[in-house]
Amino acid sequence: MGDKPIWEQIGSSFVQHYYQLFDADRTQLGAIYDNSSRAKQLLLKNSLLPFQKIQHSITAQDHQPTPDSCILSMVVGQLKADDDQVLGFHQTFLLKSFQGAWVCTNDVFRLALHNV
Amino acid sequence: MGDKPIWEQIGSSFVQHYYQLFDADRTQLGAIYDNSSRAKQLLLKNSLLPFQKIQHSITAQDHQPTPDSCILSMVVGQLKADDDQVLGFHQTFLLKSFQGAWVCTNDVFRLALHNV
Repeated sequence: MGDKPIWEQIGSSFVQHYYQLFDADRTQLGAIYDNSSRAKQLLLKNSLLPFQKIQHSITAQDHQPTPDSCILSMVVGQLKADDDQVLGFHQTFLLKSFQGAWVCTNDVFRLALHNV
Repeated sequence: MGDKPIWEQIGSSFVQHYYQLFDADRTQLGAIYDNSSRAKQLLLKNSLLPFQKIQHSITAQDHQPTPDSCILSMVVGQLKADDDQVLGFHQTFLLKSFQGAWVCTNDVFRLALHNV
């Protein structure tokens, strides 16, 4: 961990925390989003999704620093909701430091339906 | 086009231009990157890739404005290099306006190898 660039450490910690929280109790995800964020809309949508349980597994993740001192994270993975088939997904986060804490200002999600 | 939010218009125009240029003559891609960008490293790598011809097709694209007045774009698509099999890919761009022009400051790319 110590040899990784700081944006990789922050990005991968965020990603791990995000999916653990999502799989355990997605109603708690609000705390990781910027309050003014459009991502809140997605959060609300996530909370309303009709599945009972979900499990994400991460296949690959990449993190880059941006010129505005944000961290851009792209995740590729698979998820299984209830007893549905496993589906691939892609998700991108933009993380920004506000008052000492890293929050998510943008969240873009897609299921990889074209590969099924 | 006129009814779409401005970030969707800019983002989708960029994405169309990027892949057209990539497929036609990828050595010209330098003009769309921020000069100080880490993405330049990827550009160099792209130029050195050993395929002769490549064709991208876009399956889905999403664009969001960010708090720093950037545009975050996530693309899912497929590509075919030379006579290789068709492969899925995911790519994320962060676009920023510098002196009236939109340039790419970050570019994250992954082949969707786990779905093959």
